[in-house]
Amino acid sequence: MTDERIWTAERIWTAGLLVIGDEILSGRIQDRNVAPIATWLNIQGIRLAEVRVVADVHERIVAAVNALRSENDYLFTTGGIGPTHDDITVDAIAAATNVDVEVHPRARAALERYYETRGGITEARLRMARVPAGASLIENKMSGAPGIRHGNIFILAGVPHIAALMLDALSGTIEGGKPLVSRTVGGWVPESEVAELLRDAERAHEGVQIGSYPFFREGRVGANFVVRSTDQPVLDACVDDLVARLEAQGLDVIQGGV
Amino acid sequence: MTDERIWTAERIWTAGLLVIGDEILSGRIQDRNVAPIATWLNIQGIRLAEVRVVADVHERIVAAVNALRSENDYLFTTGGIGPTHDDITVDAIAAATNVDVEVHPRARAALERYYETRGGITEARLRMARVPAGASLIENKMSGAPGIRHGNIFILAGVPHIAALMLDALSGTIEGGKPLVSRTVGGWVPESEVAELLRDAERAHEGVQIGSYPFFREGRVGANFVVRSTDQPVLDACVDDLVARLEAQGLDVIQGGV
Repeated sequence: MTDERIWTAERIWTAGLLVIGDEILSGRIQDRNVAPIATWLNIQGIRLAEVRVVADVHERIVAAVNALRSENDYLFTTGGIGPTHDDITVDAIAAATNVDVEVHPRARAALERYYETRGGITEARLRMARVPAGASLIENKMSGAPGIRHGNIFILAGVPHIAALMLDALSGTIEGGKPLVSRTVGGWVPESEVAELLRDAERAHEGVQIGSYPFFREGRVGANFVVRSTDQPVLDACVDDLVARLEAQGLDVIQGGV
Repeated sequence: MTDERIWTAERIWTAGLLVIGDEILSGRIQDRNVAPIATWLNIQGIRLAEVRVVADVHERIVAAVNALRSENDYLFTTGGIGPTHDDITVDAIAAATNVDVEVHPRARAALERYYETRGGITEARLRMARVPAGASLIENKMSGAPGIRHGNIFILAGVPHIAALMLDALSGTIEGGKPLVSRTVGGWVPESEVAELLRDAERAHEGVQIGSYPFFREGRVGANFVVRSTDQPVLDACVDDLVARLEAQGLDVIQGGV
């Protein structure tokens, strides 16, 4: 029996992520969505290929949406789907995809239920039921405002724990390829002392990538080496080889990284 | 006497930021450079207009460098300037700007000094002295590897505390406009209850922007409202007006935000 993967170039699924928010660009708050979305995507077998952060400006959002969706299988966005005047994500994505904005009946019903005991529905709150025409909803048990799926575009909340709930709801529903697996080893060594060795180990194993991440801790320098591949046996062989090369140079290698 | 600012549209200086790093896109680590760079830029009177995160892939870096530098007064990059095979920032920026790569004599001398007591200079370590032809160095007292200034492009380290030292060295050396000033007020109110009020307050004061940032804490919902302007009196007038409007609606306004 032939292992098809040997003969067929594997399809790599990619996503772009657009973070919409003046508050990130002003430095007021630090983004906390990129890392969890990247990790979640990887579990779905999708690689995060690019992130852009743009201001709450219609034209900027439209341009970034069109660039990222044309280059990737999927586009995720965070931020700008609340009820206030600076929440313009839905309008921008509708404009970028040439559809109208409509009120989604199920989103309206969910908001009416949610606000029944919280002062009732208002025009501002109803803004959160607006979706690009034809879009479907992404459930969210935490607040009344749903996320939105519009073709290959996934519109998530900016508040990290709500974005995470929306990802949970999407888990297993999006087609992807083989997840990238990784292993980390590290040691107390300046990366410049092992630079050639790292390059050689990477070249000796097709389909792996080795990243080198230096750090300064407790007054000493060290580095972690992250080996990535979609193929576990290939990954393991490369890690074994890398460890042997590092130990041959006298380094105490720490599995899992320092 | 006429206040020229009333009659002249103020020049707004902008910067793009390119974060180069597989480790961010894989979700392995969370970026910690964007917020401090954004804050530092604002102090220089420069607005961070866009951030992109791309992988350690030559063509991706070249494309992002050219897009961001054509749209902004300045471009900052972080990451990819170490001694290992995945550090390809200098080569990509040289390619994007159509210059060769050369070894900078002062960078080479600094590295030789630094490594004199640390095992001596090697080919890998010398990689850190490579710059786009004609570039100058950005000092860095922490490690031997300098940052690089190449025209309006500033190439910083990926390790956050080293990037911060490089910014310190640049403080006050780059031309900018008036810094954006901001004030924050907040309260325990769902933002949807004050959405119209926020929009009206923003519209009533030209040259201000109001951002609304909801949160969920201690089982309750609240929101902070950040008012931004380049003009302190205009900012203060808008904040006073906003507070009056919020209080008229029965809210206990917390200065400085919740």
